[in-house]
Amino acid sequence: MRRDRLLLATTLTAILSADLYFILLPKLRNIRRRSEPLCSCGSNNLSRDATPPGLNWTSVSPQLVGLTRRETKDGGSKLEKLFSHPLYNIQTPAVGPEEKLLQEEQLSEYVKKKVTRWERHMKLYSEAAVALSNITLIQHKMTLDPKASWLRFHLGINRYALYSRDDPAVPQLLRDMQRMTIANADYTQDEKALKGACDCSQVVKPSGHHLKLALKMTNYAKAMFKPMRQQRHEETPEDFFYFVDFQRHNAEIAAFHLDRILDFRRVPPVAGRLVNITGEVLEVTHTEDLRAVFFTSPANNTCFFAKCLYVCKTEYAVCGTPDLLEGSLSAYLPGLTIAPRISIPNPWIRSYSFTGREEWEVNPFYCDSVKQMYPYNSGNRLLNIIDMSIFDFLTGNMDRHHYEIFTKFGDEGFLLHLDNARGFGRHAQDVMSILAPLTQCCMIKRSTLLRLQLLAQPAFRLSDMMRESLQGDPLWPILTEPHLQAMDRRLHKVLKAVRQCVRRLGEDEVIIKDFVKSTAESGTSTERKKSR
Amino acid sequence: MRRDRLLLATTLTAILSADLYFILLPKLRNIRRRSEPLCSCGSNNLSRDATPPGLNWTSVSPQLVGLTRRETKDGGSKLEKLFSHPLYNIQTPAVGPEEKLLQEEQLSEYVKKKVTRWERHMKLYSEAAVALSNITLIQHKMTLDPKASWLRFHLGINRYALYSRDDPAVPQLLRDMQRMTIANADYTQDEKALKGACDCSQVVKPSGHHLKLALKMTNYAKAMFKPMRQQRHEETPEDFFYFVDFQRHNAEIAAFHLDRILDFRRVPPVAGRLVNITGEVLEVTHTEDLRAVFFTSPANNTCFFAKCLYVCKTEYAVCGTPDLLEGSLSAYLPGLTIAPRISIPNPWIRSYSFTGREEWEVNPFYCDSVKQMYPYNSGNRLLNIIDMSIFDFLTGNMDRHHYEIFTKFGDEGFLLHLDNARGFGRHAQDVMSILAPLTQCCMIKRSTLLRLQLLAQPAFRLSDMMRESLQGDPLWPILTEPHLQAMDRRLHKVLKAVRQCVRRLGEDEVIIKDFVKSTAESGTSTERKKSR
Repeated sequence: MRRDRLLLATTLTAILSADLYFILLPKLRNIRRRSEPLCSCGSNNLSRDATPPGLNWTSVSPQLVGLTRRETKDGGSKLEKLFSHPLYNIQTPAVGPEEKLLQEEQLSEYVKKKVTRWERHMKLYSEAAVALSNITLIQHKMTLDPKASWLRFHLGINRYALYSRDDPAVPQLLRDMQRMTIANADYTQDEKALKGACDCSQVVKPSGHHLKLALKMTNYAKAMFKPMRQQRHEETPEDFFYFVDFQRHNAEIAAFHLDRILDFRRVPPVAGRLVNITGEVLEVTHTEDLRAVFFTSPANNTCFFAKCLYVCKTEYAVCGTPDLLEGSLSAYLPGLTIAPRISIPNPWIRSYSFTGREEWEVNPFYCDSVKQMYPYNSGNRLLNIIDMSIFDFLTGNMDRHHYEIFTKFGDEGFLLHLDNARGFGRHAQDVMSILAPLTQCCMIKRSTLLRLQLLAQPAFRLSDMMRESLQGDPLWPILTEPHLQAMDRRLHKVLKAVRQCVRRLGEDEVIIKDFVKSTAESGTSTERKKSR
Repeated sequence: MRRDRLLLATTLTAILSADLYFILLPKLRNIRRRSEPLCSCGSNNLSRDATPPGLNWTSVSPQLVGLTRRETKDGGSKLEKLFSHPLYNIQTPAVGPEEKLLQEEQLSEYVKKKVTRWERHMKLYSEAAVALSNITLIQHKMTLDPKASWLRFHLGINRYALYSRDDPAVPQLLRDMQRMTIANADYTQDEKALKGACDCSQVVKPSGHHLKLALKMTNYAKAMFKPMRQQRHEETPEDFFYFVDFQRHNAEIAAFHLDRILDFRRVPPVAGRLVNITGEVLEVTHTEDLRAVFFTSPANNTCFFAKCLYVCKTEYAVCGTPDLLEGSLSAYLPGLTIAPRISIPNPWIRSYSFTGREEWEVNPFYCDSVKQMYPYNSGNRLLNIIDMSIFDFLTGNMDRHHYEIFTKFGDEGFLLHLDNARGFGRHAQDVMSILAPLTQCCMIKRSTLLRLQLLAQPAFRLSDMMRESLQGDPLWPILTEPHLQAMDRRLHKVLKAVRQCVRRLGEDEVIIKDFVKSTAESGTSTERKKSR
């Protein structure tokens, strides 16, 4: 119980300081402005002043911001200032072994098995490849380092988030994905499950097979590669349904940065990379099917196309220049056998058909029914769904049909925001219906709201944070200016939606003291069991 | 034999006058320029002067040029001047009944049967549609006019060309296709033969199913509709193979105009039209399969997609705004039962695979073998293939895998230049390999060469002719300026190729007195039989 008390005190203090910063201070400033001449005082100092003394604020790790630190016009990194802000320094409790996704020994044993299996496979494959002399096979030396960034990332996953703010494994993993030698390329498990078959009886469906590939690095790290299919300035045509839109590698990268800036940490690390699709994909794959979709275009570029629907059609292939192709590399989560996840339909799922409409689109009281339903009837789940809808609204992603959670953490586990490649399709359009969970339920976590308010301030403007954060990626610029500015406009729309709710229902009904409530005041059975 | 003699005399005179115009006159002009001050004399007058008196030049019909007549800067229509030029007025012999594709009674009987069948179908369909109340059925009154332009076009087809230069049925048919009420829409026979099946065992193939539809007008005229899939300024990406390139409605329209300007008259009339795909396609189709591919897009536009490969994918659909969609309407040829055609592989066919190469691509003496082969070993067939390659080179169409001829006219029949929608994909690129039949065989019809030389002169510049001709189409501008100018550049490359052949082999070997040779001097058995 002692840990909970400390947590309660810490959180209350953080919220008090945020209240001071957002509510009391502006009032004081207004009064001062009206009564006497101004004296100069930086807003950052003010926020520091507002922090009650004696609290052990975790300072932000220089390693985390190191990757993306940039000098701004006024001489400092705005992103660093954001990550130094009290709101980004609410101390999380020390994480007990049960609250970690994986134990070190367990992971180490699992990985050793994987390595043995890989070595066996390589032996057999090399023998077979010698017989088939027409295959150019590049073999890279593999080394398993127990301190590898991907293993440390896996070990860092806990019940609160995918990584902690100051985990140096994350920037290291980004660097590794950008630079490490790719030892193998293959179809993803999703793709393999399809076995090249297409269910053409369904006219439309949330299809997954979009040229994505699984890449293995020489240190056994795995990443999902999504190749570039659109130029940065290209917009989704207005006649496209969300479920047939291209997947955008830059959206995948930008979503990781946004998630980190929102302090959700529910998106696995994603890095951009210029991949040599001949030397780093074709010549390292052991999969005949994958080899078969490669061809040389009339312009002498190396291209490949997806197996299924596109099998007859090469016009939907992607091509390098002549071999180099941009793509996003998303870090793999631990394997499903060691860290099972479940995929749950989004209650605000869209109709994946031409004409169908889901209940939430026609029933304004839809949220009342959701609130009655397990698991949305207790704990943070519904608030997490609302967080996710805000995240998706900011990126313009309409394709959130399912979400995943780690089964280990039960119903109170955080939601994984995987598959963000259909965001950033149209900068000029704000799809208000993505916000339906917020506008229909009129609830938001206090912590989320406070951070959104902070990112709406000129000193911490969301677009500035994103621009600076994305500068750390080798494929910079990831987003065009109109897309960056669209995020600011959308953020104001989120805040406006919250204000309208507050006006209608009052602050207490709308702004939920999330963390405190769930773990100390009215925690669910899962929570209580854990804190006993 | 009397007809042949007249023909011989006429042709020789035309060639003489052309020689005077192209060879003697420039020399005279040069001499005059050097010796004395110039007197003003229009080039058109010169060409008229060059025409020997006493010959019965058929004057160009005002109806033919009526559609496309435009005032040019110097006050007159350049296109009219072209069509008045002696080269475009070589009198063709009166066409005997055997030399016509169809006899009036035969066609009339065939059409009556078709009308009866249609009326029976309509009766049955209307009864069925009453039972299925969910179908909106628009029924238009059908009238068969024996003087309808499409019937006159069909009757005008003869062994020399699809239509004669002054046939008023052609401009009337263009107008009819642009304006007549559409009574029915359906898949084409090609499409129906596929029965929605896709042969995905072949990775690449010359696929025909590209959203094209058969439209029937209220006077029973039929046209093939190809919808717009690309904006005028869009270019084929460099990585596309020719066989997967989009079909372009504007290429189909432009090809008809070019063919007429080259005086080939081997492309059936094509008109552009803004079609209401709801009222003029969806609501007049009786085909459930076609109805099923229509949908309303997120932007509330009416769209439809192709049956086969695209069945799961709506991103390759075409959409109206909200219902109106540009398209090309190509006049149907008479039905195959009444006027059978055969489809013959082009000897210069390309490899429809990623890596394959055909013999002509690697063997510089390929033409020698073709010349030995029936039916290329006698008559005009090889010269016709070379005409076709020049036509395709000017448009940039690499997809001429087959050509068709009417069986009635035997091996000496003219080649139909059908399916030109893959031209005009890249204005900056001149695909020299399309010209292989010309450059490898080093032969060209004298009549073709003379017209090409005329169109290379400033007064009759091909791009000016095309620009003016295309102005008559409702979807004007059909081609962007870079595409028009590319044709001038390509025309010069054709002439350069001929010059190189002449330099190597001499004029007599290269420039073939086509018409004369084939019908009078060294006609084939087919020809001789006819002239007996």
